Amino acid sequence: MSALPPLTLILGGARSGKSRRAETLIAAVASGAAVPPVYIATSQCFDAEMAERIALHQQQRGAGWETVEEPLDLAGVLGRDFGGRPVLVDCLTLWLTNHLLADHDLEAESTALIAALQRCGGPVICVSNEVGLGIVPDNALARRFRDAAGRLNQAVAAVSQRVEFVAAGLPMVLKSPTLVSL
Amino acid sequence: MSALPPLTLILGGARSGKSRRAETLIAAVASGAAVPPVYIATSQCFDAEMAERIALHQQQRGAGWETVEEPLDLAGVLGRDFGGRPVLVDCLTLWLTNHLLADHDLEAESTALIAALQRCGGPVICVSNEVGLGIVPDNALARRFRDAAGRLNQAVAAVSQRVEFVAAGLPMVLKSPTLVSL
Amino acid sequence: MSALPPLTLILGGARSGKSRRAETLIAAVASGAAVPPVYIATSQCFDAEMAERIALHQQQRGAGWETVEEPLDLAGVLGRDFGGRPVLVDCLTLWLTNHLLADHDLEAESTALIAALQRCGGPVICVSNEVGLGIVPDNALARRFRDAAGRLNQAVAAVSQRVEFVAAGLPMVLKSPTLVSL
Repeated sequence: MSALPPLTLILGGARSGKSRRAETLIAAVASGAAVPPVYIATSQCFDAEMAERIALHQQQRGAGWETVEEPLDLAGVLGRDFGGRPVLVDCLTLWLTNHLLADHDLEAESTALIAALQRCGGPVICVSNEVGLGIVPDNALARRFRDAAGRLNQAVAAVSQRVEFVAAGLPMVLKSPTLVSL
Repeated sequence: MSALPPLTLILGGARSGKSRRAETLIAAVASGAAVPPVYIATSQCFDAEMAERIALHQQQRGAGWETVEEPLDLAGVLGRDFGGRPVLVDCLTLWLTNHLLADHDLEAESTALIAALQRCGGPVICVSNEVGLGIVPDNALARRFRDAAGRLNQAVAAVSQRVEFVAAGLPMVLKSPTLVSL
Repeated sequence: MSALPPLTLILGGARSGKSRRAETLIAAVASGAAVPPVYIATSQCFDAEMAERIALHQQQRGAGWETVEEPLDLAGVLGRDFGGRPVLVDCLTLWLTNHLLADHDLEAESTALIAALQRCGGPVICVSNEVGLGIVPDNALARRFRDAAGRLNQAVAAVSQRVEFVAAGLPMVLKSPTLVSL
């Protein structure tokens, strides 16, 4: 790829290398640019486990990024003018979890996010977890979250020009302008 | 694709858009036909959560389908003469769950289903969940179900001419007459 | 494929057919050879469920393999001279589980394994589970294992020349010398 499309979705499991893949795509286009790419972190630091995970991600990403922390109002942040700099949203699944914990309407929040993504011009890369490939969870809350996460991934994929599924650090391209259907 | 092969398998996670993908494949060949495609629903309506899910699927599917509800005897239904109309089985995982809850022999039921699929002529599209990509479940019943579901998916894939894996509403083709191995 | 590269990784879920796929790749190059391929089994037989699973795998594999059982010291076994015979390691996830249960340092063990894989010359095929595509597990130990398993898969994929993701017995190629990026 020589340039990023307006919207890209990187899907994958836990520790699949999806954040790293997104950073690689951005680094490829951002190198040599005068202004840094933007990292929008949706994680909230509740405990030591989460703090360690956040620190590891920051270390992997390296310097040269502007970081914006926003656990809930992604649509608001995406409305800012980033002057055409590439934006990485990491990740949609934590953002959805934050709204679940705050007892917000997940469908309404998702709809507002999709609208903001379509308005913002990009280039934006969203990272998101695929969480629906295990056994049906025992508790109803987990099932409700799984449904909402799956619906959100479908909706973001539908408005994205490029979608990848990452496993073991390697991308499978699900959607791209040059992909031929078989 | 200009025509459906005798047997197609659509695999995917929860809320991955696999049912919708199957409906799209059928709509593409069924449009303009004088007779409606057949929808075989295997779900059983135990509670409000399930009722809501069934209603949502019906609404997405729209009119123009003949619906057959059959939670257990899929082999029997597939033995009927549908006159060449496309048939959508949604889904194999719920059918297997129903047999598990009824304490039936999952291997014997799966073998009988495969035989019926091979006899029926098609075109049939089976939708099924991939459930083996999470952490090993704590309880033995869930592990037994996971094994049976994985074996069933393998067996159905082996007799299908086309197999797709759907994520975020987008298909990856695992098997098709035109697919070149790399 | 006419020959196996030095290192191949076969990823997949439970009962996805990943072991069978690895055996097929080895059988294709080993047929007609005077010496048998090597099967390195990492499973430990704790209970009846595991014994049944091991027996089933042995039966599917058939005769004509030399079997080495090694639950922990994979690096040591890979240091032996197998005279260029193809080696199947089945599987990395059970090996990691064994080290978790023995309270070993998973990161140090993984680093040593990667070094041994790179030294050994091959051809070696490693089978491994993808376990990060379900809902976040409730307990911290499962989350720690999921993280370690994902990191190991990424590291093995990075040093492998060929990587496949298997679902329903069918491979998707994630990495190969002939794969064109889209």
